[in-house]
Amino acid sequence: MPTYRLTLEYDGTRYRGWQEQKNAVTVQGELRKAIEAYLGAAVELGGSGRTDAGVHALAQVAHLRVARELRGEALLRETNDRLPADIHLLGAARAPERFHARHTAVARSYLYQISRRRTAFAKRYVWWVKRELDVAALAAAAQELRGRHDFAAFCERPEEQTSTVVELERAEVAEAGDLVLVRIVASHFLWKMVRRLIGALAAAGAGELRAGDIGRLLRGEQVAGFVPARATAPPSGLFLERVLYPGDEALGALEPAFPVPRNA
Amino acid sequence: MPTYRLTLEYDGTRYRGWQEQKNAVTVQGELRKAIEAYLGAAVELGGSGRTDAGVHALAQVAHLRVARELRGEALLRETNDRLPADIHLLGAARAPERFHARHTAVARSYLYQISRRRTAFAKRYVWWVKRELDVAALAAAAQELRGRHDFAAFCERPEEQTSTVVELERAEVAEAGDLVLVRIVASHFLWKMVRRLIGALAAAGAGELRAGDIGRLLRGEQVAGFVPARATAPPSGLFLERVLYPGDEALGALEPAFPVPRNA
Repeated sequence: MPTYRLTLEYDGTRYRGWQEQKNAVTVQGELRKAIEAYLGAAVELGGSGRTDAGVHALAQVAHLRVARELRGEALLRETNDRLPADIHLLGAARAPERFHARHTAVARSYLYQISRRRTAFAKRYVWWVKRELDVAALAAAAQELRGRHDFAAFCERPEEQTSTVVELERAEVAEAGDLVLVRIVASHFLWKMVRRLIGALAAAGAGELRAGDIGRLLRGEQVAGFVPARATAPPSGLFLERVLYPGDEALGALEPAFPVPRNA
Repeated sequence: MPTYRLTLEYDGTRYRGWQEQKNAVTVQGELRKAIEAYLGAAVELGGSGRTDAGVHALAQVAHLRVARELRGEALLRETNDRLPADIHLLGAARAPERFHARHTAVARSYLYQISRRRTAFAKRYVWWVKRELDVAALAAAAQELRGRHDFAAFCERPEEQTSTVVELERAEVAEAGDLVLVRIVASHFLWKMVRRLIGALAAAGAGELRAGDIGRLLRGEQVAGFVPARATAPPSGLFLERVLYPGDEALGALEPAFPVPRNA
């Protein structure tokens, strides 16, 4: 069947996540409605993976299989005309029939925006951390995440996973004005893993975790006074930044999705 | 009386503009409520000028006169704790008693964000212009605005103004990704003037106005098929960027308040 690779951005604030559910407004559900209204036919539509309620995407990827050939440009325009304002289709290109948004993907990149100040504009797109943050300590803690580890301590319901071992390819930290940006790249992620890692990194930046503590948690040891699940960062600051497929361009420099406006 | 210079940012989407009104939620009204709740006393509070309903500010300035001395830091923190999430006090500094936010100001700078694409994130902060824009033509038209002109054609209710002559100091145009930014600086502005100028500049960029047409409108001539009031740009893209007082630092480079996220 003709297959298309769709790329889309969304503001997740209003949605119960990506994945279609009964009795809940989801991004996949809205996208399906828009495409099926345009084509007047049912389609097969699958995303690269779930994003949780309130999480945003700069470039979620989905595959679309339809019974007839379409022009990518018309699909893009007609779908956007039917989508709610907070979902936007960026691209629609013909793909090989074997293309599967989840199975073909080789890596996912997440971007997290921590704001060091209150902001009138970007509240939906940051986590405002009031504690004083030592960015060097936060960045050092991020280095402890790299490599192959058992992330059970940073996962919701680890008992439901086949495996909680993940190879974490990159954990980058950068400052951009009043924002602290964190990018985490891995082949796959566990439930709530990114938000729990960010919560732990913020705790390291605030001096609540010491050098080596993240490594201890990854080895299944306890760290007195710290429970990753209680430190989970809110979804507002989280963006699915890129989904990478074989042959895709490499990730660019770590930049904010939404800078907090420069101070006057 | 002890006088303070307040600097604040706000997302104007929810507000009926800056200026206090009976039976309407305004930025000045919310700011007064927060300060008076903290101090437990009535205060004198005046802004640099009105911003219309839906218009944002990166750095609106107000003067605050109170009966007793305050510490700027406490005023900042306690006021922000009481403000709605879409208004944020950036600074509060002791000022000379003669400081008056409106009368002491020597110039105002407005920033306008035109987006050349639909965006899931920044709808509240841009005007999405679907027409193809020639940015060089738009920038050339902006040059016609510079200098001393009668802006009656670009003003709502010109008959209520003492004078519609304004010296327009700067009209700058820049591209930033999918955004076209326009900055307009003048000592003062007439009602709806910026939004009507932006509407005319967009028409020039779209080829609906020709070179010299803006000059014709400024000389009170008619331009067939073009009525500035009907081309008024929406408030969503407009930000009061800076209010300049004697001795203030000059304006920096023209940059977006909110870039539309880079395309995947």
